[in-house]
Amino acid sequence: MKLLAVGTVAFDAIETPFGKTDKILGGAATYIGLAASVMKTDVSLVSVIGGDFPQHYLDMMTSKGINIDGVEMIKDGKTFFWSGKYHNDLNSRDTLATELNVLENFDPKIPESAKDAEVLLLGNLHPAVQLAVLDRMEKRPQLVILDTMNFWMDLTWDLLLEVIAKTDVITINDEEARQLSGEYSLVKAAQKIHEMGPEFVIIKKGEHGALLFNDGKIFAIPALPLEEVFDPTGAGDTFAGGFAAYLTKNQEFTFEEMKSALIVGSAMASFTVEKFGTQRLEEVTEAEMIGRIKQFKELTTFEVKL
Amino acid sequence: MKLLAVGTVAFDAIETPFGKTDKILGGAATYIGLAASVMKTDVSLVSVIGGDFPQHYLDMMTSKGINIDGVEMIKDGKTFFWSGKYHNDLNSRDTLATELNVLENFDPKIPESAKDAEVLLLGNLHPAVQLAVLDRMEKRPQLVILDTMNFWMDLTWDLLLEVIAKTDVITINDEEARQLSGEYSLVKAAQKIHEMGPEFVIIKKGEHGALLFNDGKIFAIPALPLEEVFDPTGAGDTFAGGFAAYLTKNQEFTFEEMKSALIVGSAMASFTVEKFGTQRLEEVTEAEMIGRIKQFKELTTFEVKL
Repeated sequence: MKLLAVGTVAFDAIETPFGKTDKILGGAATYIGLAASVMKTDVSLVSVIGGDFPQHYLDMMTSKGINIDGVEMIKDGKTFFWSGKYHNDLNSRDTLATELNVLENFDPKIPESAKDAEVLLLGNLHPAVQLAVLDRMEKRPQLVILDTMNFWMDLTWDLLLEVIAKTDVITINDEEARQLSGEYSLVKAAQKIHEMGPEFVIIKKGEHGALLFNDGKIFAIPALPLEEVFDPTGAGDTFAGGFAAYLTKNQEFTFEEMKSALIVGSAMASFTVEKFGTQRLEEVTEAEMIGRIKQFKELTTFEVKL
Repeated sequence: MKLLAVGTVAFDAIETPFGKTDKILGGAATYIGLAASVMKTDVSLVSVIGGDFPQHYLDMMTSKGINIDGVEMIKDGKTFFWSGKYHNDLNSRDTLATELNVLENFDPKIPESAKDAEVLLLGNLHPAVQLAVLDRMEKRPQLVILDTMNFWMDLTWDLLLEVIAKTDVITINDEEARQLSGEYSLVKAAQKIHEMGPEFVIIKKGEHGALLFNDGKIFAIPALPLEEVFDPTGAGDTFAGGFAAYLTKNQEFTFEEMKSALIVGSAMASFTVEKFGTQRLEEVTEAEMIGRIKQFKELTTFEVKL
């Protein structure tokens, strides 16, 4: 199976309690592509960049087997730029700058080779763009996964609901699930979001792990306890990418497979936060990933004698 | 094996978004005793009550097989009373009243029948009382478990450290672990607390579950996602009680057994929060408890095919 992902390919400038970066490689689609490449998944990206985007970033992605035919370059435009500063607990951040640049008029173009992708991941982006991508597929993919955030709830509520209605899986964080549903209890929130469309609802809780809801069933995983979270940027995108890549590879979209995919996504994300930006994810080997999945297994396995 | 627990037997008046109570049965030792009784564990309580404490509460405990020989009644004294109001998210609360009453001069007396208890649970209480109980045992119990809270860190830091140095297992919440260790990362916090004495460190994260640390090993469990948390009062005490009772019954104090005990404690606590005070815990059957442990298993079990 093939995975098609739409999202930003961008520049980030990040400040954490541990240091700060200049403009480095970032963007939802970048993290998704890299996570999928660790999983050796057939992945294509749809995005837009400016003439200022360094060729060596593109070469790096290509060398990892990421298909970037759908990453359009607007030669006289500038690449999307985001800058943020994390608070001391790394659980919250202030946005210092958001320069939309070429993203402002982004008209997503899907390469012929990926129009029949069986799995579509709508990475965090304007819902209008997500809808356009869905419309431009040859036929509806077998699985449509949506990643979104509070920003779009605040700005484009109706459009977002339209996307949500067309997706099979949604991944959002706990505060966003509460905002979207108007329910404080995450169990109730997931039920309401389920009624909006998605058969599977994933609620991400950062350092507290994640929950997967499907038809009354619940699966919960803790996050891997880390000594140090260095930079949380891209963790959610990496999670979505690892999740989608696992499902694409295993070609089954059952609750059991979704559980496994949740673990793979979490394992991936646990690498991303270890260094600035995409740095750690770029160097992750398949063996390291398998090792981390085993750590999840050890972390959560128990027997009760009664 | 026998379990001895020291803690309050008290009156609580509770207000949550769902309602409020008059003075009802409360206290750490009460919850611990009830949790242990569900586990059919040989449990004795050490505590103090006033002449105003209703006989029917004592009868209820006795009828459940809880040994209350060590619950001293000061006839002309009044029972400890706590009153609190929970905020809308139920994760925080304001204390409205704390009347120490007979607790002020509590001099714990250990019944002869329990002086040789193999497992000692020092429930949340003044560290001086916890130390006195430990000193008055026939010999050091095989396993000493400590439950404490930020209140004692603020008021009796040195004494608390003295108790901590003498325990095998400590259970505290995430914020308290950070306060106690001066470390934000819970992994680092657990390491520092480990160095203070306890071989096993349990960090409770409320709706986000709990972590168990031992000698570089980590076990993590989510909390059971509940549609509604009705009243969190006593959840921590119930957890400690279920945890200690399981270990007392199974007579092994390995990391593997601690993991199982963590599940049992969490399952117990998930009942307590369903109704006001001890109401739900008083009616829990062994079958219900086994059912809930199975739910934990379903909630957390996964396989990853790679």
